[in-house]
Amino acid sequence: MADARDLAGPDPLVIAGRSFGSRLVMGTGGAPSLEVMEAALLASGTELTTVAMRRVDPDAPGSVLDVLDRHGIAVLPNTAGCYTSADAVLTAQLAREALETDWVKLEVIADEVTLLPDPIELLDAAERLVADGFVVLPYTNDDPVLARRLADAGCAAVMPLGAPIGSGLGIRNEHNIELIVADVDVPVILDAGIGTASEATRALELGCDAVLLASAVTRAEDPVAMAHAMRLAVQAGRLAAGAGRIPVRRYARASSPRRGRIE
Amino acid sequence: MADARDLAGPDPLVIAGRSFGSRLVMGTGGAPSLEVMEAALLASGTELTTVAMRRVDPDAPGSVLDVLDRHGIAVLPNTAGCYTSADAVLTAQLAREALETDWVKLEVIADEVTLLPDPIELLDAAERLVADGFVVLPYTNDDPVLARRLADAGCAAVMPLGAPIGSGLGIRNEHNIELIVADVDVPVILDAGIGTASEATRALELGCDAVLLASAVTRAEDPVAMAHAMRLAVQAGRLAAGAGRIPVRRYARASSPRRGRIE
Amino acid sequence: MADARDLAGPDPLVIAGRSFGSRLVMGTGGAPSLEVMEAALLASGTELTTVAMRRVDPDAPGSVLDVLDRHGIAVLPNTAGCYTSADAVLTAQLAREALETDWVKLEVIADEVTLLPDPIELLDAAERLVADGFVVLPYTNDDPVLARRLADAGCAAVMPLGAPIGSGLGIRNEHNIELIVADVDVPVILDAGIGTASEATRALELGCDAVLLASAVTRAEDPVAMAHAMRLAVQAGRLAAGAGRIPVRRYARASSPRRGRIE
Amino acid sequence: MADARDLAGPDPLVIAGRSFGSRLVMGTGGAPSLEVMEAALLASGTELTTVAMRRVDPDAPGSVLDVLDRHGIAVLPNTAGCYTSADAVLTAQLAREALETDWVKLEVIADEVTLLPDPIELLDAAERLVADGFVVLPYTNDDPVLARRLADAGCAAVMPLGAPIGSGLGIRNEHNIELIVADVDVPVILDAGIGTASEATRALELGCDAVLLASAVTRAEDPVAMAHAMRLAVQAGRLAAGAGRIPVRRYARASSPRRGRIE
Repeated sequence: MADARDLAGPDPLVIAGRSFGSRLVMGTGGAPSLEVMEAALLASGTELTTVAMRRVDPDAPGSVLDVLDRHGIAVLPNTAGCYTSADAVLTAQLAREALETDWVKLEVIADEVTLLPDPIELLDAAERLVADGFVVLPYTNDDPVLARRLADAGCAAVMPLGAPIGSGLGIRNEHNIELIVADVDVPVILDAGIGTASEATRALELGCDAVLLASAVTRAEDPVAMAHAMRLAVQAGRLAAGAGRIPVRRYARASSPRRGRIE
Repeated sequence: MADARDLAGPDPLVIAGRSFGSRLVMGTGGAPSLEVMEAALLASGTELTTVAMRRVDPDAPGSVLDVLDRHGIAVLPNTAGCYTSADAVLTAQLAREALETDWVKLEVIADEVTLLPDPIELLDAAERLVADGFVVLPYTNDDPVLARRLADAGCAAVMPLGAPIGSGLGIRNEHNIELIVADVDVPVILDAGIGTASEATRALELGCDAVLLASAVTRAEDPVAMAHAMRLAVQAGRLAAGAGRIPVRRYARASSPRRGRIE
Repeated sequence: MADARDLAGPDPLVIAGRSFGSRLVMGTGGAPSLEVMEAALLASGTELTTVAMRRVDPDAPGSVLDVLDRHGIAVLPNTAGCYTSADAVLTAQLAREALETDWVKLEVIADEVTLLPDPIELLDAAERLVADGFVVLPYTNDDPVLARRLADAGCAAVMPLGAPIGSGLGIRNEHNIELIVADVDVPVILDAGIGTASEATRALELGCDAVLLASAVTRAEDPVAMAHAMRLAVQAGRLAAGAGRIPVRRYARASSPRRGRIE
Repeated sequence: MADARDLAGPDPLVIAGRSFGSRLVMGTGGAPSLEVMEAALLASGTELTTVAMRRVDPDAPGSVLDVLDRHGIAVLPNTAGCYTSADAVLTAQLAREALETDWVKLEVIADEVTLLPDPIELLDAAERLVADGFVVLPYTNDDPVLARRLADAGCAAVMPLGAPIGSGLGIRNEHNIELIVADVDVPVILDAGIGTASEATRALELGCDAVLLASAVTRAEDPVAMAHAMRLAVQAGRLAAGAGRIPVRRYARASSPRRGRIE
């Protein structure tokens, strides 16, 4: 039996002209050990993984970067821990220099309690980084207007949250995610809030192009099993999104007509 | 990379002492053609499929039974279209004779509009069929008390609905499904209501042992793609259910601590 | 300004030919004191209150029955604590004798953990009590089929639960409540599960004729304030149900057209 | 029986030092006639009503302003139809001159399809108007960070949406509304999205200080009845919010202990 990718044929996620076979973007924070993280990344099938620049020493041996490099997983540096546009821009520039990539997951956080993005600082940083030649993937709230403005500013994707980082609350506002998907032309990556597999499936069904998650895997009791669950969940959601689901009906409909037979 | 079953190791669904490698039970009604049905069943990976006795002529060549037989998929005759205990019992007995199996998916429906099970007639029929040596899998509503009574009556599994047959409304009352899972010792199979993949994943996450669906696949625009989605969705849900998901938190939690590093 | 009843005109709840000005049926269990219970009942505006026969000594002075009598609130004895049809029937008969009313709130519970009704015993008891001349108001689960069978058996109302007694989970399955409202001709009273005022409002909006609750008021920190809230909530829901709400729209609609004015 | 305000004692809504007895702020757009609008405003009990400056001619006789004036309802001019900060500021200044009030409901909309607020332009306009001495009540999305920034900028209240204007989708993201209520010190007024009474009740239960709505009343089949429903719904929600609701429980709890009695 063919696996999902075979069956679906080539269906890559394309961001800024680059193709990925997996629609699951991983984060690395929260894993109990480097070994578990590595096993979980492999089980997830991810081809793109984000790393916090504030926590990485690119020259240290045995680091997360070695793991990614060893398995051919692309690095997406992020600006976690930045509270202002200026700080985020500087962090991105240092990342570019250190990691030799102009891709950046842009995070500009408003406070430590909610970890929610600051919309004003975020848009400002996105505009500056785009002007500076970066491929910018901003972590944003689920406001369709801000998502549109970020896309209009030249971001390569938009990454709205389902719920606050690490909350495991899932997708709080499906309506907003649907509005964003309908409204922007760049890939939409659901980022933050996912707690379990069905929510990742749902994100793809709503039309998101990919899912980004970390805690749901790294802090699960069995990170490798959950990573595998997420891999399958994202594949299931992508297939379902393209399969033309049945309409929702208020009343029942017999799965087979009373008269006639298909045999 | 191992697939879900390899990774999870042997994790069969066991009903009445019989093991199944797949946790997706399929129905056949609603498919546009026998060819599409066959392809969808294969894509689903199912090892157990239910067939309405009222619509099958076991001796007809080229029937759904041939398809199941050719691919080694076990047949689960059902009593769809029966409105009374007496009618259902008779139909089950005819099925046993014709198909040489004492397994039966027991349906006793109250009316044609809702297709909801009649609890009184259902329990009565279940008791009679168990006494007559059948392996009884009753399609029931999501009432935890009725589920318990069916299990106490000797049913081999209980199959609560998520929502009315063919409605695609998903799982209307997760709380009841959780109560049933906590309360009965036989396998719980979510039957009816599933419209898309995330709902199948969710059923497994809630603790159900399997999912039964027909319309969600057979009436989708692309039944084969949806069948494949459902196969992956059920695997994802099973893995997630065992992986110990993160707790839901009201506020955010950084995926990585501010101090310290895992590298 | 007229209050809700004036404005709406006469809109009584009619059960078995008897009219009530209030659509809030109260229970008395759980109150911290008889004085608080009395004040809460008055604040609720209820005209019909259920009392557990197992706990009441009709001859004791200063009892809940005195309170109801003093304020002209009709007593609805209930069979809480009964686990079989026989027990419930006997309890109802004793209540009729002691309280000189043939009305009964019929409860037949399956177990002490969920307090969910046993559908088989409940229907049996309802049939017997109707045959014995009682006005039967059964506490039932939210299964539309059982509700219909209870109505067909001659019950004067059906009282489906929103969620388990005392859980405060609200209305778990709005779809089932809507199916019941659409299907039975007797009054539908949402009974059990209500935790706060908006849920009582919602029950009326879904088409229920009344709400029955106890714990939500008696166990609130301020029972009198919550009783008043529930009184207003039920009035609000009844008015809203009849006012023809706006349709739900996927996108926005300006509350005023861009051109033209109403002035 | 005392009405809600009597029972609760004086519990005014206080905005910028001004007290209102009603927690229902009304809009006027969408009413079928001026007469219906007047009757609905009276039934709602509102003491503060917003009027679109773009549509009002303050000197026209028989206008909505006359109606408000006649009944002592305070006018809250709004900047509906403005797409930029500059436009909104100008509109507010004209309103101040024409209506002799420095209060303004600030709307800066991103587009005509979603009518969602533009966060960047909104914050900019709020800062300018506060500097110019206005009492600013901004219509904002449900982003807790933007709400906080608006409050920090000196706005007299924040008015997050439940859902897009006129959508009747209710409160899409209760979690965000709760975060806003917990985080800002000025009054929180749920603005936009309300379709029916239970949603208004819910807004107050979540901790909002008031509700603003127009279409839910003016476009209902019976605007006056719905206005009355909303009045009661808001009172119910306020009382419930202060009454200390019972906790949500996974399992049942008998409303009365098995042993002991309160009588």
